[in-house]
Amino acid sequence: EQAGAHKFAAMFELHIEQGPVLDGEGCTIGIVQGAQGARWYEVTVSGKDAHSGTTPMHLRRNALLGAARMIDRIEAIARVHGPDAVGTVGLIENRPNSRNVVPGEVFFTVDFRHPQEKVLDLMETDLRAALGEVLEPLNLSYREARIWESPPVKFALELIECVRIGAQEAGCRARDMISGAGHDAVYIARVAPTTMIFVPCRGGISHNEAESTSLEECAAGAQVLLNAVLEVDRRPG
Amino acid sequence: EQAGAHKFAAMFELHIEQGPVLDGEGCTIGIVQGAQGARWYEVTVSGKDAHSGTTPMHLRRNALLGAARMIDRIEAIARVHGPDAVGTVGLIENRPNSRNVVPGEVFFTVDFRHPQEKVLDLMETDLRAALGEVLEPLNLSYREARIWESPPVKFALELIECVRIGAQEAGCRARDMISGAGHDAVYIARVAPTTMIFVPCRGGISHNEAESTSLEECAAGAQVLLNAVLEVDRRPG
Repeated sequence: EQAGAHKFAAMFELHIEQGPVLDGEGCTIGIVQGAQGARWYEVTVSGKDAHSGTTPMHLRRNALLGAARMIDRIEAIARVHGPDAVGTVGLIENRPNSRNVVPGEVFFTVDFRHPQEKVLDLMETDLRAALGEVLEPLNLSYREARIWESPPVKFALELIECVRIGAQEAGCRARDMISGAGHDAVYIARVAPTTMIFVPCRGGISHNEAESTSLEECAAGAQVLLNAVLEVDRRPG
Repeated sequence: EQAGAHKFAAMFELHIEQGPVLDGEGCTIGIVQGAQGARWYEVTVSGKDAHSGTTPMHLRRNALLGAARMIDRIEAIARVHGPDAVGTVGLIENRPNSRNVVPGEVFFTVDFRHPQEKVLDLMETDLRAALGEVLEPLNLSYREARIWESPPVKFALELIECVRIGAQEAGCRARDMISGAGHDAVYIARVAPTTMIFVPCRGGISHNEAESTSLEECAAGAQVLLNAVLEVDRRPG
């Protein structure tokens, strides 16, 4: 049977937030509107290896200097498109990576995320403009490629409303939010009405042994899930 | 017998420049005045690992962003104390170095060089001021240590004069310069009058299979060395 051939009335996914927002604001429940889109890029900056003692500053083609200025620009691009945009250089490989050699080549990754496709387009345009503006004056060349993307997802409005009512019934302090991470719900949303409920994780720490959600927060999440399922069941249709 | 117990009249060392200056200016001979001093530092910047999708920009403690801004500042420090200062971040280790994790810790090295000790002192002061100015507003902590230093060396004035005369006799285009790299002469200078003669290396490339000095340039270096030795031998004393 093909995915989606069997019709489902609704899908709710209860999950820890995997971020610091609920914990920071003292909220127990996140009413999740959708998942942001993500685009991943890879950049290689090329200059020239040179002796750190004998090569005057003005004759250098320092690939790490170019990468460093790009890291700062990528931070700025995310902040300009804030508060919902994020931009991260998480991985960098410096070559030859020796303390007395001016670096000749640097590889780094870029991770851009935003709930709206059109803002991701703007961030991509800004990234490509910055590469030319930053690297060419340093006499550096570069290669850049978008290697992966995940489009933004909007969850089912009726189910979001059921979660909101469920949180009110449970007396929980709640806030609307967008999922920053990917989840099963992102894929189920392609074939069935879907939404998510978030509970806090302490300090936003996730994928880590220190990940922690209190029993009370877990119970609140379960109660809101039950309330939301009962609410959608009561509705006609 | 202890080093220096046996007195030498003079020591001349002929070497390739290991830098791009002679080749770039079309000079055949470098009349070396001394060797610059060097200081090496190690810096560890500490922030907090975080999910690149779920952590808003304003809640991040991004160690790689701090390191990137320091790389730019270290470039600026070298240029402010130019044209004889050089400053290099050659080695960087980013942790955890994953494309969807905001980096929590970065280790990098700093290599500062200048012919004058007092300028190295100023560069060190600038480095330490920059660490506080750049990292504290980003909510990052750091450890810094000077792990090695080599003081500047001035070669023997009389021998430098002999090299200058030797280059004139040979009809070579010559320029005064400071050695950016370390050499045997730097250590011999502690126990005997010493200087050096440089010949070009193509494109400044050294410690590399592509290192290249023409036969004519090697011959010019040997001729200037002979002329200088004969000149010092003719002098009283």
